[in-house]
Amino acid sequence: MTRALYSLCGADERHFFSPHCWKAVMALAHKGLDFEEVPTTYSRIVDIGGGFSKTVPVLDDNGRLISDSFDIALYLEDTYPDRPSLFGGEGGKALSRLVEGYSQMMIHPAIMRIALLDIHSILDEGDKAYFRASRESRLGKPLEDFAAGREAEREAFAAKLEPMRHMLRFQPFIGGESPLFADYIVFGALQWLRIAAGLAMLAPDDPVMAWFERCLDLHESRGRTVTAA
Amino acid sequence: MTRALYSLCGADERHFFSPHCWKAVMALAHKGLDFEEVPTTYSRIVDIGGGFSKTVPVLDDNGRLISDSFDIALYLEDTYPDRPSLFGGEGGKALSRLVEGYSQMMIHPAIMRIALLDIHSILDEGDKAYFRASRESRLGKPLEDFAAGREAEREAFAAKLEPMRHMLRFQPFIGGESPLFADYIVFGALQWLRIAAGLAMLAPDDPVMAWFERCLDLHESRGRTVTAA
Repeated sequence: MTRALYSLCGADERHFFSPHCWKAVMALAHKGLDFEEVPTTYSRIVDIGGGFSKTVPVLDDNGRLISDSFDIALYLEDTYPDRPSLFGGEGGKALSRLVEGYSQMMIHPAIMRIALLDIHSILDEGDKAYFRASRESRLGKPLEDFAAGREAEREAFAAKLEPMRHMLRFQPFIGGESPLFADYIVFGALQWLRIAAGLAMLAPDDPVMAWFERCLDLHESRGRTVTAA
Repeated sequence: MTRALYSLCGADERHFFSPHCWKAVMALAHKGLDFEEVPTTYSRIVDIGGGFSKTVPVLDDNGRLISDSFDIALYLEDTYPDRPSLFGGEGGKALSRLVEGYSQMMIHPAIMRIALLDIHSILDEGDKAYFRASRESRLGKPLEDFAAGREAEREAFAAKLEPMRHMLRFQPFIGGESPLFADYIVFGALQWLRIAAGLAMLAPDDPVMAWFERCLDLHESRGRTVTAA
């Protein structure tokens, strides 16, 4: 049995920074499954399974390939039902899609504005060229122009987490008394920001920071294996 | 057995408009429970159970009083476990608190800015005075000054629902193939906006509008019993 997770890395191969890959890492750790995290630059994604996916993470579970962090979590839940649940039932599975929407449509765009140049600076030389060309094509402007509003975005960032603060008045994790995949969805976003640009835009006494620290402590402090900017 | 839900109304007693009361109405209907919806102005909340709660909804379930829409949903789930679930398991219950946070911290403030004067205009004369005094004290300015930014807020409103559009790419309800309490949380917010100010700020072909229409159709079209502004 071999199990590998192909996970995006920077010029430093230990520098795993992708929010989506962190979701998959935490999901595998939550299930208590051994796996090798394979450092993968953008340019090497095409080599996984003969071009199986345009994106990482890709899970290779003893020859079975699965891409997309949410699909990986669904696969793990179906395939390893006797291990700790990632969703806490069908309701939790369905609601996790709205949590994904909140993270990707509200939090990710803000992080992109704040940390785009920092993310670029993490990459190896080949990936830097790819990243700049693909993002500038998508954004319709140079990375530096897009990043010009980063200070305003840093100041506005804490407000994006108000839904989290409301939830944390009632319970320590999105999953309730203990974490579920929904926690890893939002954790992945803040872990991406922490690694690329740090979390100085959040106050030390912010309840979201206390939750994030709890998440960093999970699974033998897996999240602390990559240092912050 | 008598079951009553005290629910906020305007000068017209059939004009139930509160987002929190709509959540409770839909939760009761979801459980298939008969109940009387008791029209309650702000000034009459103090009379419920001898001043039991400062807010509505209040559920009187054969003499047992419960306030707060989320607590009412939890009570119904515990008390009527053999009827259709409002949460779909413990994970769904926990994640519903983040959905509540998204609705109340992201969507409600925008609706307040858009519809504050419309809400005021719905109320009876006594409630109008109370509403103006309490909101102006909280906001630190006249209602009219607070509402000055309403046009910009109307234009920005659709973007607040991007997490919903993401979710709707995968499933017809927040609860998956069928609705759960999490749907009623966001439904309550948009129902409040629809009744007070209409939904013209959302495009007719917006997937959120299709979801909202599906919610209006639920439980013998209960949501359509109050007409829109």
